[in-house]
Amino acid sequence: MTVAALPAVAGSPATAGAVPDIGTLADRLPAGTLLTEPASMERYSHDEAEWAPWALPLAVARPTDADQVRTIVRWCVLHGVPVVPRGAGTGLSGGANAVTGGVVVSFERMTAVLRIDPVERLAVVQPGVVNDDLRAACAEHGLWYPPDPASSPWSTIGGNVATNAGGVCCVKYGVTGDYVLALEVVTGTGELVRVGRETAKGVAGYDLVSLLVGSEGTLGLVTEVTVRLRPARPPEHTVVGFFDSVVAAGEAVAALARAGQVPSALELLDRHCLTAVNDWKNLGIEADCEAILLARVDGPGAAGVAEADAVLACFESAGASWAARSEDEAEADAMFAARRLAYPALERLGPVLTEDVCVPVGRVPEMLARVQAIGERHDVLIANIAHAGDGNLHPLIITPPGDEAARRRAQSAFDEIIAEALLCGGTVTGEHGVGLLKRDGLAAELSPAVVEMHRAIRRALDPHGVLNPGKVVT
Amino acid sequence: MTVAALPAVAGSPATAGAVPDIGTLADRLPAGTLLTEPASMERYSHDEAEWAPWALPLAVARPTDADQVRTIVRWCVLHGVPVVPRGAGTGLSGGANAVTGGVVVSFERMTAVLRIDPVERLAVVQPGVVNDDLRAACAEHGLWYPPDPASSPWSTIGGNVATNAGGVCCVKYGVTGDYVLALEVVTGTGELVRVGRETAKGVAGYDLVSLLVGSEGTLGLVTEVTVRLRPARPPEHTVVGFFDSVVAAGEAVAALARAGQVPSALELLDRHCLTAVNDWKNLGIEADCEAILLARVDGPGAAGVAEADAVLACFESAGASWAARSEDEAEADAMFAARRLAYPALERLGPVLTEDVCVPVGRVPEMLARVQAIGERHDVLIANIAHAGDGNLHPLIITPPGDEAARRRAQSAFDEIIAEALLCGGTVTGEHGVGLLKRDGLAAELSPAVVEMHRAIRRALDPHGVLNPGKVVT
Repeated sequence: MTVAALPAVAGSPATAGAVPDIGTLADRLPAGTLLTEPASMERYSHDEAEWAPWALPLAVARPTDADQVRTIVRWCVLHGVPVVPRGAGTGLSGGANAVTGGVVVSFERMTAVLRIDPVERLAVVQPGVVNDDLRAACAEHGLWYPPDPASSPWSTIGGNVATNAGGVCCVKYGVTGDYVLALEVVTGTGELVRVGRETAKGVAGYDLVSLLVGSEGTLGLVTEVTVRLRPARPPEHTVVGFFDSVVAAGEAVAALARAGQVPSALELLDRHCLTAVNDWKNLGIEADCEAILLARVDGPGAAGVAEADAVLACFESAGASWAARSEDEAEADAMFAARRLAYPALERLGPVLTEDVCVPVGRVPEMLARVQAIGERHDVLIANIAHAGDGNLHPLIITPPGDEAARRRAQSAFDEIIAEALLCGGTVTGEHGVGLLKRDGLAAELSPAVVEMHRAIRRALDPHGVLNPGKVVT
Repeated sequence: MTVAALPAVAGSPATAGAVPDIGTLADRLPAGTLLTEPASMERYSHDEAEWAPWALPLAVARPTDADQVRTIVRWCVLHGVPVVPRGAGTGLSGGANAVTGGVVVSFERMTAVLRIDPVERLAVVQPGVVNDDLRAACAEHGLWYPPDPASSPWSTIGGNVATNAGGVCCVKYGVTGDYVLALEVVTGTGELVRVGRETAKGVAGYDLVSLLVGSEGTLGLVTEVTVRLRPARPPEHTVVGFFDSVVAAGEAVAALARAGQVPSALELLDRHCLTAVNDWKNLGIEADCEAILLARVDGPGAAGVAEADAVLACFESAGASWAARSEDEAEADAMFAARRLAYPALERLGPVLTEDVCVPVGRVPEMLARVQAIGERHDVLIANIAHAGDGNLHPLIITPPGDEAARRRAQSAFDEIIAEALLCGGTVTGEHGVGLLKRDGLAAELSPAVVEMHRAIRRALDPHGVLNPGKVVT
């Protein structure tokens, strides 16, 4: 879906004046850095948020170092041209969607793992490094980089930083931002700076690292990332539970929280997801139920076994129709693979409108019931996957291709899910980011004074209004 | 030491104009909220950073709720009066030091633990709650609030948040900022806002919580804090090592890091500290050595025993003159008590200039050797305590009372320690904050462009320049 123009950005110089000569930027960069042919423009114009508006950019830049990024941003500042940074384009909120007259900066050629330090337990990488590639590089040193979004085989660390990506193991180990120690950044005034530090602790000045993480390219372009690592952990145990309804599975999630259990993964998949994955990939998962919970625990030795038993007991006492500790690692892996493949599998059925609300864990069953009721009320199919253990639900609203009436109903369901998540004490986005899809949600969640704080900070760090305009807050 | 005037704050309205009538503020607050008599002014005029300048304030406000805080800040904005927030005054960088003509806001009457939620594992508290009191309240629910600065029996959560306080268990469990989920804040424009959320995850907008944590009262006054909790953990094992030099102890710290060990505490005390504590409190610690390492591990069951053995092996292979797993919990507690009491014990010997540099863990031995050389070069006594496991060193420079020449030498040593920590890839402050003492250090650590980002953010959130002027960055 191409939308003619995104909402104009107040105060952005990009909304005024003539189109500048892109050749004057190309002249400042090595040959091949800048793409302008229409086919490339299309390929770099949006992320995977199918419902978010996008436009064809003026050009796509593929820098190979931070100096080139600085050159690009300075040129954009000079000419009032929007800069839209882009990782692998796996985002689900439109945060990387191009805008008319803007330059997309793709980090696909900045893919070096620059350093892994096993003593300080940190890694320094360029933003284009793929999440799984970093994990593999760390494993060679007996180290572990935890944040593992479902997109980890494709998404990049730069994109993960921009969105503060979560993932499966976050329920115990936290999100991307919990691992970022330092950043090299090109600022909104075109300066190349370093923020943060390599030491375990440090309070010299404001926490600019955390401010930049999750800012979706609106406060700076990240050109290098230093992440904290953990020692490799013991093997996990997997516990699987089948439930007769998604709400019943939600009750088991709340029961685990009440029991004080902290699994290293606690994922929910409903029947729609399992069927879609099985139909597509034939993973051979037999599950005669409405919802599955997949838990993992990773306590060392006997403690891990005890944890697994405690999870199993919670599943059973919460009414699982079947539950067991998986003794078959291949089977367990297949189930987590199904979790990871659920989104692309459902996309095959029609345009998917992806939710990302996050509610207090004790209210997961209530929120799942509300989602179910919303789906029935609006007569739309809502499949559910969830990082259930931290209350992060991904109701996926699927409409038949080309059915405009269903599309409108889906939008209504989407808006209601957001509203009801807020009523449950939740947030409109747990890990996907605001981008374009959750701007209204942001305004509903935050008070006007807090939105104004966002604007003030944005003006402070992007005084020329060129950094990813139109995203997050306007 | 009273200093006539702090450096003027550029652009602060407080530096111009006549002294406003404080009675117009008193009239807006319940009787007894505002103190103005000279004795109180003295008592609230500085923290424990003996070397930092301070002045007598215009008044001290002791609000009992957020609305009163808002009233105070609005009055200060209207009259261009500096606002200096204050917890228990245990800070070590002058961050809470009063300024001439300013209003100190003490949170001593906002001490309620408002809510502890065992399911969501969070607590909501007023800023004046003492750290140890929160810990005790959580323990009643089988929960644990980890951040444990040495000041935990006195310091408040509000102060801990303002400085992003660290502590003993941070080597494994992180600092205050890792536990703050949400804040209620009175902004620089006198608005009462909530930032953050109660959910486990959330990316709706910029991470204003992390920006405010550690901002030392320069971006807002915290009126309520929501913290994340952990389940209570298994009992710890203590391992003690004696070393013939502080550098040798530092080598053992680096050896632990190389071995991939993550103890739950790893503290260093040198002979000066042990002697001072023994002389004061007679804890009966016999230690015929130059430095002690105190380690704790908290793996569950057999894993904990294995961890303790691994730490012991590292101590021994690094050349400990004596090392053992402590079988006597009372003895182990006495040693950690000595660690906690080291600072006040040394203060009895003379004015203490406290360092707080943090270096990469692998460079701890090198940095300790540099500190020793600096002490010898400048002929000053430097005692060492350290959160050694995260590279956070506290060289304590002690001068005889009234010896001005020694004082000047101490200042030179202080400056050199900062410079050499930066050469070691470190930071000028690991956990105490910038306040007044580390402003030059901040400028040495951060590039001018990053300092300018700080200023821009400060102007954005404190447009009237009333929030703790003169601290952190000017």
